[in-house]
Amino acid sequence: MRVMGIDPGTRVCGYAVIDLEAGDMKAVDYGVVRSRGRVLPERLKKIHEGLTAVIERWKPDVVAVEGIFGGINPRTALKIGEGRGVVLLAVAAAGIEVAEHSPATVKKAVVGSGRADKSQVQQMVRVILGLAELPEPEDAADALAIAICHCHRQRLEGVA
Amino acid sequence: MRVMGIDPGTRVCGYAVIDLEAGDMKAVDYGVVRSRGRVLPERLKKIHEGLTAVIERWKPDVVAVEGIFGGINPRTALKIGEGRGVVLLAVAAAGIEVAEHSPATVKKAVVGSGRADKSQVQQMVRVILGLAELPEPEDAADALAIAICHCHRQRLEGVA
Repeated sequence: MRVMGIDPGTRVCGYAVIDLEAGDMKAVDYGVVRSRGRVLPERLKKIHEGLTAVIERWKPDVVAVEGIFGGINPRTALKIGEGRGVVLLAVAAAGIEVAEHSPATVKKAVVGSGRADKSQVQQMVRVILGLAELPEPEDAADALAIAICHCHRQRLEGVA
Repeated sequence: MRVMGIDPGTRVCGYAVIDLEAGDMKAVDYGVVRSRGRVLPERLKKIHEGLTAVIERWKPDVVAVEGIFGGINPRTALKIGEGRGVVLLAVAAAGIEVAEHSPATVKKAVVGSGRADKSQVQQMVRVILGLAELPEPEDAADALAIAICHCHRQRLEGVA
């Protein structure tokens, strides 16, 4: 099973591809789609195009994104929503299922605590996947964490 | 100049087309794109497809949307953002300019007060555009109000 994790954003959108086979996780690819446009609609278009290309390249079976957001202000929530909207659209257009995991669930799956900071997540992602280097930038590490979380869930449910 | 107003949403998205000629506004079309899908990505896809078709049909010169949101909770802001994301994407893909007006500016332009309720907006939109009936549903009336606001701005700036 091929799992893609996505960390949506309107300027930087992290993505990660992990293969889950016989319970083992293997990082296939990770990185970010960047969008430096002056106006928001242009940036959303570039994020959408870049992500559509990544999805077409790796053809994941499922895409996992962070699902429930607490403790943020409305303006931040609006921006996150704009990024999520075009990400979910790209996934739906490819006919791929979307799974959502809360930020606390993702951190718990990777670090063992729902309150881990970004650097702990990066380090644990490196260890779990046996990567030679710390995954950079943070948005790509976050996408890897989301994909790892989804793989954990699949194993717990006995699917893989 | 042809102005399209859009009131984004993930279940119902209002749209309105107004022609502004020699300072006169004429309603060309208004209505809603509905999306009854079970899951959010499917709904966003339908909203995006429906709106893309409306944009292609009427070929507006500019699209106006509501821009700044205060006094809402983060969960609502996230949903609004998701709807806005796919709307702005559809507009950017068509190469059309986006203008933003705050909700208070829109209400002030239509009713004369930034604190008008939905029903006042509907009634004033009917009067301003000389419509035979109250514009329904509310989402379409809101889109008309946004388009009217943009036309007012253009006249104030001496563009039309």
